[in-house]
Amino acid sequence: MRIFGIDPGSQRTGYGCIETDGSRCRLVGCGVVVSPPRVLFPDKLTCIFDELALRLDSFRPSAVAVEGVFYARNARSALTLGQVRGVALLAAAKAGLPVAEYAATAVKSAVVGYGRADKRQVQRMVTLLLGLEEMPSPHDVSDALAIAICHAHAGARPEISGRPPGLGAEIRSWRRFRPPV
Amino acid sequence: MRIFGIDPGSQRTGYGCIETDGSRCRLVGCGVVVSPPRVLFPDKLTCIFDELALRLDSFRPSAVAVEGVFYARNARSALTLGQVRGVALLAAAKAGLPVAEYAATAVKSAVVGYGRADKRQVQRMVTLLLGLEEMPSPHDVSDALAIAICHAHAGARPEISGRPPGLGAEIRSWRRFRPPV
Repeated sequence: MRIFGIDPGSQRTGYGCIETDGSRCRLVGCGVVVSPPRVLFPDKLTCIFDELALRLDSFRPSAVAVEGVFYARNARSALTLGQVRGVALLAAAKAGLPVAEYAATAVKSAVVGYGRADKRQVQRMVTLLLGLEEMPSPHDVSDALAIAICHAHAGARPEISGRPPGLGAEIRSWRRFRPPV
Repeated sequence: MRIFGIDPGSQRTGYGCIETDGSRCRLVGCGVVVSPPRVLFPDKLTCIFDELALRLDSFRPSAVAVEGVFYARNARSALTLGQVRGVALLAAAKAGLPVAEYAATAVKSAVVGYGRADKRQVQRMVTLLLGLEEMPSPHDVSDALAIAICHAHAGARPEISGRPPGLGAEIRSWRRFRPPV
């Protein structure tokens, strides 16, 4: 199965697509949508939406995974992030794909084995798990790939745990989720 | 000129379109998008986006006005509201329309004359200003119309004040804003 991970951000939105057979993962493609500077915010949102829709159409994943935000510095930054997240979720829904959400700690636990790992550790483990020669960069890309890997780990054994591994993991679309054949 | 006001909300998103000749306003159409219950959040966003896109296409306004959120109960509610707001801004941008944002206090000042007016007062003044026989209901609809009226008041005399009336009013797309002919 193919999983498309998204790490939304108002400046940079990372995305990464992986393929998994249930045990191993391999990279399909990844990148980052950089919002053009000096552009009105609604136009930035259009840019992010269009780019994600294009990637979803070309990679043809069977599920999308996004980091669930349960903490933000303040209401203002949560609102800005929420707006970008909204168009990312819309792009997934428009492509008819189920969306899974994972807490940041769950993603880090699934990838590094430690819920408070830093971005550099996540980057290294993503490189290792996907057998890459270079570290995916910037962090937005490795974070998006980590979210996809987290979903792959969760999806590979839903019959054992009944829920994804890691702390506070949350799948919103469990009923629509199809385990790998 | 026609102005389309939006009051985004995760449960109900109000919208209202008005026409103004610079001094008087009249109602073109209004309504509320009620997110279907027991539906996954990305599908709710799709419903809101599609409905707003449909209305923008049929009303053909020349500008969109949205309430700018500068305060939220907590980061969680700001994030949820942000997601809905993101798809509302995207619908406007996709329709090629400039988006203006006003603080809630600016909207109330422009409509009621008092920045801390309650929803009922806003509802009454909207009814009066648009010469309606019935009060627009629910509050989401009258709030959306109030935002549109606020933009009409601001747009009618940009050459006098240089900025819209009211406290903390903020137009993000001033350069793209076209005053009524």
